[in-house]
Amino acid sequence: MTTADTHAAEPAPKSLARARMLVGPALAAASATLSPELRRVVEYHWGWQDADGKPAAQRGGKLLRPALALLSAEAVGQPVERALAAAAALELIHDFTLLHDDVMDRDRERRGRATAWAVFGIGPALCAGDALVPLAQRVLLADESPARVAALAALADATETVIAGQALDLAFEGRCDIAVADYVRMASMKTGALLGCAASLGALLTEGPPEAVEALAEFGRSLGLAFQAVDDWLGIWGDPVRVGKPAASDLRQRKASLPIVIGAAHEGAAGTELRALLAQREPLSEREVARGVALLEATDAEARTLELARRELERALASLERGAFEPVAREALRELAVFVVARES
Amino acid sequence: MTTADTHAAEPAPKSLARARMLVGPALAAASATLSPELRRVVEYHWGWQDADGKPAAQRGGKLLRPALALLSAEAVGQPVERALAAAAALELIHDFTLLHDDVMDRDRERRGRATAWAVFGIGPALCAGDALVPLAQRVLLADESPARVAALAALADATETVIAGQALDLAFEGRCDIAVADYVRMASMKTGALLGCAASLGALLTEGPPEAVEALAEFGRSLGLAFQAVDDWLGIWGDPVRVGKPAASDLRQRKASLPIVIGAAHEGAAGTELRALLAQREPLSEREVARGVALLEATDAEARTLELARRELERALASLERGAFEPVAREALRELAVFVVARES
Repeated sequence: MTTADTHAAEPAPKSLARARMLVGPALAAASATLSPELRRVVEYHWGWQDADGKPAAQRGGKLLRPALALLSAEAVGQPVERALAAAAALELIHDFTLLHDDVMDRDRERRGRATAWAVFGIGPALCAGDALVPLAQRVLLADESPARVAALAALADATETVIAGQALDLAFEGRCDIAVADYVRMASMKTGALLGCAASLGALLTEGPPEAVEALAEFGRSLGLAFQAVDDWLGIWGDPVRVGKPAASDLRQRKASLPIVIGAAHEGAAGTELRALLAQREPLSEREVARGVALLEATDAEARTLELARRELERALASLERGAFEPVAREALRELAVFVVARES
Repeated sequence: MTTADTHAAEPAPKSLARARMLVGPALAAASATLSPELRRVVEYHWGWQDADGKPAAQRGGKLLRPALALLSAEAVGQPVERALAAAAALELIHDFTLLHDDVMDRDRERRGRATAWAVFGIGPALCAGDALVPLAQRVLLADESPARVAALAALADATETVIAGQALDLAFEGRCDIAVADYVRMASMKTGALLGCAASLGALLTEGPPEAVEALAEFGRSLGLAFQAVDDWLGIWGDPVRVGKPAASDLRQRKASLPIVIGAAHEGAAGTELRALLAQREPLSEREVARGVALLEATDAEARTLELARRELERALASLERGAFEPVAREALRELAVFVVARES
């Protein structure tokens, strides 16, 4: 079973390509203000430079958060250009979390390339991540909207929540006894908060009505949970080439991802065997990895992970129906949400 | 020769004790809003909790930056209470830099206690540091002053500069060919920027005249350079018990600190021998550490480090004379600056 069974694989929504076109120059302008030591790490992380500092055009992020921010302005009837600062600031915060998470998780690969810390060292990668938080703040403060301070406060709140979620995730590491509800709380902090902010920040910055901003934030929070469930599904069942990470990488690293939490909570023999595998100290052999995947399937962990993704997607789409949104933008948000949940990388 | 030769050791200025009394509750209120996983790391770092989470009252920071922020408001004739948010936000940013620097430098001890990462692990210490940046922002945004957004922008700028300075410091690591001017540029970013911000942020937040804010910022930037030179002196010649780090610890770690940069740039035989010692890959023996200290003295590195501290202190005090400041606050700023340069820990 793949996510493609649930939704036919669709071409990438135009809103992502538009975000790349519109937000790229804003990100370039922001990174040009960084010191040379920081800028090379950030632009390597974006895939704009190779490890030697030579220009490159490698696979970067999807720009999902900027795309959401731009659409959220349009959803409340505002021109997309007025949300550019929100879109760029969100991507900078997202990049901050990636640069730091890769260090904390010791992930050496992202999007099929060596992670920034693996290339430049831990210190420079941490500094680059650190720098993006005040830089995001500066990008928002430079905007002319009277709502820029409210937007700044919303982004700071979301950033704090994401960090608290990451700290909780770290506290879960190596544990086999995490309740699914605790996992969901962690994921709603770590992933839901920033997607909730992204899906509403454009509307907030362009002074959309508070009920609309809140409905968009709810849409984003639910989408964030669905997104995380799919991410966790990809961390076990994703195609290594498309995902840019080794097969079943979350199992190899014994991350407390959603399928692993569900599988480890299983009360039958498969659950017992899986817990023993997860508790093992040595790296898992290829044979053990394959056995672990089979156990996850036997405990229904795969099906329940995809079910959670589907349920949260439905919840997200229902939030979209609650506001009086511009129909074209609403449809684009719907399309983007469905794409995110059906994605294979 | 010790710094005490330059200035008689003085009792700690009252402005530091006052900062502790006034800013302590603001810091406590801020940390109470953090998630439990983050809060324990932050309060351990402050010396408020031990490693098991039991209340403690151990040696924390000096609260130099909050003390400067409070005095800067008084210097422009404003009540100290109006600068509390600035004072707390500055200390939070300072703590962010300490938590992260200790990870990057692999420092296992600070203020005579194990560093946060050595107790809780790298991930939790990084998350705790990360969380303090948006928390500082939130503390400032909650202030009622119309100048809170300007204060926020100034703090974000200083934070970015500090991070760029740290990245430059990392780039200097393991190099024996750093020009003293490049070292000074790095230190003015890494240490000068935040002290410049601290010495002016209270005045900025309480809407002091721009010329006064700028003179105070210059005072702080010069004081920051003097502070860093003294810090670097303490990193070689400081009393291990008072400093809370091993004797000559910067030499053991071969940090590019000011005396080491000066010594390594020396053209005589002592410089050559010192460079060879610094280039050695193995940890230095006690005998080699002692020889290194002797070489630093032979290359005049100690005297020139103290000379730079003295010169920057004089420059700082001259900036204080340039503004039309309240005499009592001016005197307290002078006293604090002299104390910082004469300190032995």
